[in-house]
Amino acid sequence: MSQLPVEVSIKNNIAIVSLDRADKHNALDMSMFFTIRDTIKSLKKNKHIRAVIVKGNGVDFCTGLDVKSVMQSQSNALKLLFKWWPGHANLAQYVSTGWQEIPVPVIMVLHGRVWGGGLQIALGGDFRIAHDETTFSVMEARWGLLPDMGGTIALKEQLPTDKAKLLAMTGREFNAQQALNLNVITKVSDVPMETALALAEEISQQSPDSVAAVKKLYKNAWWQSKAFALARESWYQVRILMGKNQRLKTYNQTHPEKEKPFKQRRNW
Amino acid sequence: MSQLPVEVSIKNNIAIVSLDRADKHNALDMSMFFTIRDTIKSLKKNKHIRAVIVKGNGVDFCTGLDVKSVMQSQSNALKLLFKWWPGHANLAQYVSTGWQEIPVPVIMVLHGRVWGGGLQIALGGDFRIAHDETTFSVMEARWGLLPDMGGTIALKEQLPTDKAKLLAMTGREFNAQQALNLNVITKVSDVPMETALALAEEISQQSPDSVAAVKKLYKNAWWQSKAFALARESWYQVRILMGKNQRLKTYNQTHPEKEKPFKQRRNW
Amino acid sequence: MSQLPVEVSIKNNIAIVSLDRADKHNALDMSMFFTIRDTIKSLKKNKHIRAVIVKGNGVDFCTGLDVKSVMQSQSNALKLLFKWWPGHANLAQYVSTGWQEIPVPVIMVLHGRVWGGGLQIALGGDFRIAHDETTFSVMEARWGLLPDMGGTIALKEQLPTDKAKLLAMTGREFNAQQALNLNVITKVSDVPMETALALAEEISQQSPDSVAAVKKLYKNAWWQSKAFALARESWYQVRILMGKNQRLKTYNQTHPEKEKPFKQRRNW
Repeated sequence: MSQLPVEVSIKNNIAIVSLDRADKHNALDMSMFFTIRDTIKSLKKNKHIRAVIVKGNGVDFCTGLDVKSVMQSQSNALKLLFKWWPGHANLAQYVSTGWQEIPVPVIMVLHGRVWGGGLQIALGGDFRIAHDETTFSVMEARWGLLPDMGGTIALKEQLPTDKAKLLAMTGREFNAQQALNLNVITKVSDVPMETALALAEEISQQSPDSVAAVKKLYKNAWWQSKAFALARESWYQVRILMGKNQRLKTYNQTHPEKEKPFKQRRNW
Repeated sequence: MSQLPVEVSIKNNIAIVSLDRADKHNALDMSMFFTIRDTIKSLKKNKHIRAVIVKGNGVDFCTGLDVKSVMQSQSNALKLLFKWWPGHANLAQYVSTGWQEIPVPVIMVLHGRVWGGGLQIALGGDFRIAHDETTFSVMEARWGLLPDMGGTIALKEQLPTDKAKLLAMTGREFNAQQALNLNVITKVSDVPMETALALAEEISQQSPDSVAAVKKLYKNAWWQSKAFALARESWYQVRILMGKNQRLKTYNQTHPEKEKPFKQRRNW
Repeated sequence: MSQLPVEVSIKNNIAIVSLDRADKHNALDMSMFFTIRDTIKSLKKNKHIRAVIVKGNGVDFCTGLDVKSVMQSQSNALKLLFKWWPGHANLAQYVSTGWQEIPVPVIMVLHGRVWGGGLQIALGGDFRIAHDETTFSVMEARWGLLPDMGGTIALKEQLPTDKAKLLAMTGREFNAQQALNLNVITKVSDVPMETALALAEEISQQSPDSVAAVKKLYKNAWWQSKAFALARESWYQVRILMGKNQRLKTYNQTHPEKEKPFKQRRNW
């Protein structure tokens, strides 16, 4: 494997992750699964980045599982479905849910087809900006399958039950405007990469610690009890107040003409 | 009781359930409660059907509880509220929540008045297609009551809290377009039965096992933890892969000119 | 402290709570926190009121924390963050979450700026009616902080995850129409106080016990299991049926020309 199917470049503290198997419409083969996993694990540890943008090279974001390639060997399906502990994401799920472990915003830039596993990867990000000609489908239904890469969870955080079932039971195709109305995506744009960069820039004006705390709080507390959420809110706030970036942000907010750079973020 | 207040007919593997007490606007008396329960229990076991459509005969879908009839005897209220185990649906709740136990999509075709208990029955289905002149109301408020037929749960899966409270506290009437905007219904149509049949047909093109798995996954995992949902996703996918229908669907998807019929679905 | 920063007046059984620190845009100082807490605790015990309306005197509803005043003493931050038991709301959270303990609808009437802590207070109410020129912001982000006054919980009950994160990570300002589209508020009105009074009046036509039961059911059951919610529904209904107001409401509903007043509500 001389050439990895995912490119990563970092510029102005924003990591751009490009799915780079354009001749196959960025369909997911085993190498893609492993490389996305490794990319997530590497970005998690990078304390300098302020945002991650994920896009697809070529005409599509990602058309889903490369069935022919993955099914060449029996052991591949096992590798995808296997997990060490019940309740932890397996490899197939990790390429969707793993983005939530990176303590900076992950923005999915979508165009062309966002189908099947491609949609599930997109749903794992924090924000989804789609070109207005993007098409979407829970394609798994058309192959007699479930959306099993964590897609169930992600859909439940965004859609009413009946709408989520409609997409998952029929596998029907829908367009960017419909995706927006259904809350599957965050925004439609005819220049989605520019929109994503502007959003990354806007969030970078805020403290890296408060942004990381919001992400972690929503990841952990969203489906927990009210008591749990209240306790976490307070605890994360105390952690923020113990760091330097809160005071730096207050300084910058009140001295816009001479902003100071943030310190490295804490461990979140 | 020579004539049951619910008719069931099955055609092309689609079960049509008709509330048939048109002279009383399909209001719910004890016989209606028992017959709906028995209908659900019978459809649960039918492995040949691919969808259920529920409608009301006459000018209304259902105007709610037939208070005069139910309150004739003290024991009726007890029968409705009684349950063997805390946490299981009682008879009143079962006519709403029971539809989720049938492993095929249940489509509610709504017209006329969908009030009180009628609305709660409708909320128990997977999809709600309403004629554009349908009216809705959480009528219980006007009788000094709670919507206690499982309506609380169903509303929480569809609406933001403030909107759900507004409907349940005021009992105010709302129309089909408002119901659509509030996510109370899935679609407005001036030919709701045709729209429902087309949806049933569309879902019947997919594997009965993947459809049943989606329904069960969303029923069980929707309000559970993320870990639980991830584990269920994988387990249901393994069960699907062990069956024949996944391969049949893949064959049909790639050979549209010579589709093969599905095998009977597994137990879900 | 001769003059309390919160005014309460009761008229026609509707309590009007006015944040009254207009010269400071109703920013939250320690006195404001304590007085709001005491106001909530007093209204909880008042069995005569049928609704609470909260508004701000002057040009803004509330611009958030009065940082300069609160940070004068080290002990203030401790007072705000301190709580006796993990999982219970601390003082800062209580001024938002406390409104849910009052067993009548709490309607927030919003105008001018609803920023930071002001937004979190507003999110604690049951309904939010905003003037069309109101502006909103999760202002905490701009000070390097989390929205930690219970705002996380309230947002999760109203918004899809991506939208909630967008507001909390960027702190960006949004207007009344955007707030409505995001489900942050219930309604836009150019006469929000009149709209709120009409809603309070409409709900007062219903039984105080069924209204209190709806509020408590949604407070307790919203993020609990399905079994828990079903059991509570039935239990609250039994409690309603044991009271007098259900029968009074039934009488009023069927004798509109000679309505009888409700009895005092039960303990909820």
